[in-house]
Amino acid sequence: MKTSDWMKKAESLQEDAVALRREFHRYPEWALGEYRTASRIVEILRKYGFQVEYGPAVMDPSALVSLPSREQTEGWMKRALEEGADPETVKAMQGGLTGIVGILQGSGPGKTVAFRFDIDCNAIDEATADHRPAEEGFASCHARSMHACGHDGHVAIGLTLARLLAENKDRLCGRVKLIFQPAEEGVRGAAAMVAAGVADDVDFFFGGHIGINQTESHTLAASAGDFLAVRKYEGIFHGKSSHAGLAPQEGRNALLAAAHATLALHAIPRHADGATRINVGVFTAGGSINAVPDRARIAFEVRGQTSEIKDHLCGEAERILRASADLQGVSVEIHTLGEGESFDADPEFAEDVARTAESAGIYRRVDRYRPMRASEDCTLFLRRVAERGGKGSYLLFGTELKAVHHNPKFDFDESVLAESAALLAVLAERYTKE
Amino acid sequence: MKTSDWMKKAESLQEDAVALRREFHRYPEWALGEYRTASRIVEILRKYGFQVEYGPAVMDPSALVSLPSREQTEGWMKRALEEGADPETVKAMQGGLTGIVGILQGSGPGKTVAFRFDIDCNAIDEATADHRPAEEGFASCHARSMHACGHDGHVAIGLTLARLLAENKDRLCGRVKLIFQPAEEGVRGAAAMVAAGVADDVDFFFGGHIGINQTESHTLAASAGDFLAVRKYEGIFHGKSSHAGLAPQEGRNALLAAAHATLALHAIPRHADGATRINVGVFTAGGSINAVPDRARIAFEVRGQTSEIKDHLCGEAERILRASADLQGVSVEIHTLGEGESFDADPEFAEDVARTAESAGIYRRVDRYRPMRASEDCTLFLRRVAERGGKGSYLLFGTELKAVHHNPKFDFDESVLAESAALLAVLAERYTKE
Amino acid sequence: MKTSDWMKKAESLQEDAVALRREFHRYPEWALGEYRTASRIVEILRKYGFQVEYGPAVMDPSALVSLPSREQTEGWMKRALEEGADPETVKAMQGGLTGIVGILQGSGPGKTVAFRFDIDCNAIDEATADHRPAEEGFASCHARSMHACGHDGHVAIGLTLARLLAENKDRLCGRVKLIFQPAEEGVRGAAAMVAAGVADDVDFFFGGHIGINQTESHTLAASAGDFLAVRKYEGIFHGKSSHAGLAPQEGRNALLAAAHATLALHAIPRHADGATRINVGVFTAGGSINAVPDRARIAFEVRGQTSEIKDHLCGEAERILRASADLQGVSVEIHTLGEGESFDADPEFAEDVARTAESAGIYRRVDRYRPMRASEDCTLFLRRVAERGGKGSYLLFGTELKAVHHNPKFDFDESVLAESAALLAVLAERYTKE
Amino acid sequence: MKTSDWMKKAESLQEDAVALRREFHRYPEWALGEYRTASRIVEILRKYGFQVEYGPAVMDPSALVSLPSREQTEGWMKRALEEGADPETVKAMQGGLTGIVGILQGSGPGKTVAFRFDIDCNAIDEATADHRPAEEGFASCHARSMHACGHDGHVAIGLTLARLLAENKDRLCGRVKLIFQPAEEGVRGAAAMVAAGVADDVDFFFGGHIGINQTESHTLAASAGDFLAVRKYEGIFHGKSSHAGLAPQEGRNALLAAAHATLALHAIPRHADGATRINVGVFTAGGSINAVPDRARIAFEVRGQTSEIKDHLCGEAERILRASADLQGVSVEIHTLGEGESFDADPEFAEDVARTAESAGIYRRVDRYRPMRASEDCTLFLRRVAERGGKGSYLLFGTELKAVHHNPKFDFDESVLAESAALLAVLAERYTKE
Repeated sequence: MKTSDWMKKAESLQEDAVALRREFHRYPEWALGEYRTASRIVEILRKYGFQVEYGPAVMDPSALVSLPSREQTEGWMKRALEEGADPETVKAMQGGLTGIVGILQGSGPGKTVAFRFDIDCNAIDEATADHRPAEEGFASCHARSMHACGHDGHVAIGLTLARLLAENKDRLCGRVKLIFQPAEEGVRGAAAMVAAGVADDVDFFFGGHIGINQTESHTLAASAGDFLAVRKYEGIFHGKSSHAGLAPQEGRNALLAAAHATLALHAIPRHADGATRINVGVFTAGGSINAVPDRARIAFEVRGQTSEIKDHLCGEAERILRASADLQGVSVEIHTLGEGESFDADPEFAEDVARTAESAGIYRRVDRYRPMRASEDCTLFLRRVAERGGKGSYLLFGTELKAVHHNPKFDFDESVLAESAALLAVLAERYTKE
Repeated sequence: MKTSDWMKKAESLQEDAVALRREFHRYPEWALGEYRTASRIVEILRKYGFQVEYGPAVMDPSALVSLPSREQTEGWMKRALEEGADPETVKAMQGGLTGIVGILQGSGPGKTVAFRFDIDCNAIDEATADHRPAEEGFASCHARSMHACGHDGHVAIGLTLARLLAENKDRLCGRVKLIFQPAEEGVRGAAAMVAAGVADDVDFFFGGHIGINQTESHTLAASAGDFLAVRKYEGIFHGKSSHAGLAPQEGRNALLAAAHATLALHAIPRHADGATRINVGVFTAGGSINAVPDRARIAFEVRGQTSEIKDHLCGEAERILRASADLQGVSVEIHTLGEGESFDADPEFAEDVARTAESAGIYRRVDRYRPMRASEDCTLFLRRVAERGGKGSYLLFGTELKAVHHNPKFDFDESVLAESAALLAVLAERYTKE
Repeated sequence: MKTSDWMKKAESLQEDAVALRREFHRYPEWALGEYRTASRIVEILRKYGFQVEYGPAVMDPSALVSLPSREQTEGWMKRALEEGADPETVKAMQGGLTGIVGILQGSGPGKTVAFRFDIDCNAIDEATADHRPAEEGFASCHARSMHACGHDGHVAIGLTLARLLAENKDRLCGRVKLIFQPAEEGVRGAAAMVAAGVADDVDFFFGGHIGINQTESHTLAASAGDFLAVRKYEGIFHGKSSHAGLAPQEGRNALLAAAHATLALHAIPRHADGATRINVGVFTAGGSINAVPDRARIAFEVRGQTSEIKDHLCGEAERILRASADLQGVSVEIHTLGEGESFDADPEFAEDVARTAESAGIYRRVDRYRPMRASEDCTLFLRRVAERGGKGSYLLFGTELKAVHHNPKFDFDESVLAESAALLAVLAERYTKE
Repeated sequence: MKTSDWMKKAESLQEDAVALRREFHRYPEWALGEYRTASRIVEILRKYGFQVEYGPAVMDPSALVSLPSREQTEGWMKRALEEGADPETVKAMQGGLTGIVGILQGSGPGKTVAFRFDIDCNAIDEATADHRPAEEGFASCHARSMHACGHDGHVAIGLTLARLLAENKDRLCGRVKLIFQPAEEGVRGAAAMVAAGVADDVDFFFGGHIGINQTESHTLAASAGDFLAVRKYEGIFHGKSSHAGLAPQEGRNALLAAAHATLALHAIPRHADGATRINVGVFTAGGSINAVPDRARIAFEVRGQTSEIKDHLCGEAERILRASADLQGVSVEIHTLGEGESFDADPEFAEDVARTAESAGIYRRVDRYRPMRASEDCTLFLRRVAERGGKGSYLLFGTELKAVHHNPKFDFDESVLAESAALLAVLAERYTKE
């Protein structure tokens, strides 16, 4: 059997892949609340004979940041059950532990090859007009929730790949791990899975995304790089209220502390070693016009072209938050809300991946490299694998887009589904045997 | 009949006064939403034979600032009807025109004496424990609504005064006007009533408050002064969003504009002619950590010991808002949310009022003067009357307080109700005959 | 002999008083550099038989703030010697210890009465046209130095008083102390003299000023009050320079720290207990456009209607300086440059002084009280005397002014000289005998 | 004759080149004050038979920014005359028009090849110990003036090249232009020479620098690129002074305006298209602690990886200056102090230059490319030549440095002088014949 056979097999699964994608599109779930999605993934992986792990076995809760509130979590779990999730699975994932790893042993000794798929949605109201999901009946049924980034497609690709591999297990040596990661939005889920050791035994690792800046169908970018490292923060200032007319001097002004912090954060100097980004995206403070504000919250992010630059910015930012609090005699809590690292492609491995892809005959064109300039927590897996001596690449699966990612009208060319599953199967075969 | 007879008559109405106060306490209504309260006042004044005006006849809508939204107004009107308000009255007040003037002609020619009572509540959740309204069954039945300033008492005093005067009309010459003003909280209601000419024909004017810094029961302050002039503002900045990682330079940052405005407002220089106050009490901006914020809102107040100082501060503040917008290339809307003027007592008239009060034998002690250092839009009536050659005073009715004003456990000694009505009746008799 | 005889005696000394004033006007000296002025005062007091103390005996160097540099001091001492100062006296005063106390024992036992005169000039270029000193040949011969506040007159009054008293010693009981204080500008000299114990044995103390808001000749204000307490500061930020193009991230930006400090200082809240003032009056930072600035200096003052308010502001200001440094990761030195306290007149003593002045027949009018709203370190003497049980007053000697204080054309009606000396002699006689 | 003959000829001039360098090192002159330097250049070029133009013929005064004051200019001209400059030449250059162009016609028709040398010094006190110029007697004799960037070497190279070419004119076709540019420090001189049309007829253009990041002797970088575009600004704020204690509200605070501008400038967003830099390097404001500051000056620079980014930053910066003035009700003057553009090497031409250099046998190693990340106004010539269809390159002449540029101990390996002149002669021969 030739490598291009994978594509033929995949083609026969395209209809099922579309059905899966549309099911997940209908039930989008926010980061760390993907109980229904995860329950379905567990169910399907088990059906194909995968060994399935989830909950604390694959996510270290101590590495999770910005957890949803208990009320949110309970609401989401309840909704998932109402929408058909398996009660036992959901219970085991309680607390946002919605990651899953499916493992398939090949027919002989070999390498471990891992594939990672992210599964959460965006906090967006989906468009109701001039939009295929609405017209063809698979629009989101959850308010302010929409798969506007394509993670529904990622899940469908992952499950189609699972079936392809399970039905052709004899072509694999070694072991394949399918990693379904929650909470990519906000760059929060990968850290907990990496901390649980999910990537520690991986020889070859593949992450990827449909679309982004690879927007021509039937093309592939064999390696994306130039990811910006990022950390997301919130700073909560606690001061003391007083009547602004009768005793202004008795207040400790949290709002002013946050305003100073905001200006100082944006004035962190540029860095000669590479690009930086700083953005205070949220500011909420006070409540009553005639009271000195005793509470303020800012949420912001710093990004750097390298993780070293990002770490430098984090040091600056944390010092600024503390000093801004001192400036007004208030206190501050600093929380990390999410984190991603920089990653640059390994050109040699990328070349090998590209040639493998070309030889499979799936694509009209295979590009070697594409820069991202954005942030992704898949980088945590990629760096961990590299630290342990493995190799990895971040793939971009070309697909035409109806609107840009995170737009209420986001949609993509579904032919990418089977095609991508086929490519990943090719890579699984190739690298388990390496 | 002696002036002190008024107190005896009032005493016999104390129980009814308490019942009224507790009824209004049960149904607190926010500023410009006092439809049920106003409807009841209209009903009761009519019962006592007052000529009653309300709606546009006594409030100039063009002078109203920071109106509630149409949705809020409709919700409040509906609720008032459900709670027994008269549909015709409510309809005539639509749009926050919830002010009422009751007029009683005396038995002969004489002066016009006006009394003003404010009727709105605070946006506070009432305490449910260790608090008489909860224990004795007259707690607020509206969420985030509570008469925590004593305006329920003011309405009860006004209506008890109405009954006292109506039943003893022969003791009055000239004319008495009872002015029930909405929206004292936020200093918004008086401007519209003054603009409608309600104070233009008044020779003697009395406003007042229970408690404040007159916290000994059975005492009176015959004149309060040293009110701080105030203007309350909101500044809404409109910028342009962009992705903070991919195109930071394309955004127009409304949040940064508001942060600069905040620092510049607080740095407006002190004034050699008297005290000033500045407070940015609310700041809300942005929404997404990775987007340049396209919207920010700050709400703030400036206060001055004189209206001239306040006007100077307003000029500074408005320039600062506009310049802060320019600083970031964004636009800004500036809205006035409320306004009060400074007012100082007329010592001669205050002395006359004090002696009248003493001769009525109602109080254990009558104080001549008490400084306020706070803001009140009753000052707009007082200044208008003074401009037209009349005289006025702001009275403080002594009453022990359970907790300070605007506290969820605020409560007062209800003996102040009849007592205050008696004093106002004495003043009505005295000054209609002046 | 009647009290009014003092005026007659003084009149005969008016010409000499004018000559003295004009001599001191010609040789103005900056704060803590008054070597020539002080040497002349020592010489004249000795001539009249006073016991004279100066240098460390009357100034505690450890209480001196913002000393001039060694170079400045040496330059000033050298100039003073060239202009005729006594080398021994100058040497003893080295280091800015230019204060002098002259003591005269009266003829019998009695109280100790002290008078204080300030002796330094302003850093101003004197007007050369349309200005009497220029026209009549007694203009300043020192660049950027001018007696534009009238301290030349104060010295002339003090020395005329010395002569009056010395020539009429038999009319005094007890003891008279004439205190000549350096460095009133910048409110620096009094602290060191008070710390040296100069005021500790004083029963009655008189400070004062010509002009200010007592600008009618031949009048007196017997007590000035409502002085604003003040502290003057400098904050010097030390950061780290780096090339702004090649390594901006390596710098520690002292200029940005100072800019944040400036905004935060001006935004210190108003105080409900009384007036406040804040002013950052000097800001110098950096030097090279393409280097991250490693040094910044701000000089500022805080004032309060009471010393308690001032102390509160000092606490806020010092915290702000330290936190602003932290904000940029730089360090800061905080120095006090000067200090004055609030002082309010003792109405009873003021009344006694006023009647004594009236009975002396010197003035057309004696005012009881005049508010200052400005700052003076004479308050340190006044508070020290009051602490030890003594009494004191700050007098305003009425005199028409040609231009306001600190103006290059400042000049006054010299008739105030003999007149003031006469009044002080009257007070010396009256209170040594108290 | 072979190209490598140029090196032999140059070697014989090395001693003279060193003497020239040391003469210019002794008499360093600030930007736009290089009267002595320029007079000597004119004299020497004439001696070699060049047609020499200077003053308004080669500099458009209307394109000159941040001119020195008339007093400075007069002082510098006087000093130059005292140090032997030619009076007529100096007079013609009055007003900072100290640029010179020397033209040499080759023996036949051909291309025009231009070489540019910058001639100004730095405002630095030269080291007096452990420093060859001090030890060997050619240290700067001007206070706060030192050739610490190597422009003394550039002049010596230019004049040695002039002699080489003049003595071997027959080897040239076409025309050679030697451009001696004042005021490279502060990036000010090139604009005026470009505006005068000096580069309009140039076919091949060479700028360059000794050292920088080419610090190995006997090496060359054939093309430097990645220059940051830069604009340098000053903002002068004019407000209104008032007494900070007696009338703070009457002031218009220029210092606060500058502080806000500073924070807003540093907070200009990053740019996705390339690197940016912002630095407020100088801040001077106020003068008196107790006066509201009526004047403030900031000097700053913005840099961008491309000229487009720089222009975007300029737009932001200018708006910020104006808005910051409005924030405090003050006015602002905005002046450009200097400007440079981005420039990237033309790889094809660079390759040709590199091969020419290699074939001349002068260097141990010829590098193709070196990135600068700094700013230079030579870019204005390079861009102008490119706009008109010509080609150009910025060369780096390798030389060991004793200390980095702009350091008081800066010194270089003088063997670079003859070597560089030889290379430029090679290029002159090669490209006039192109």
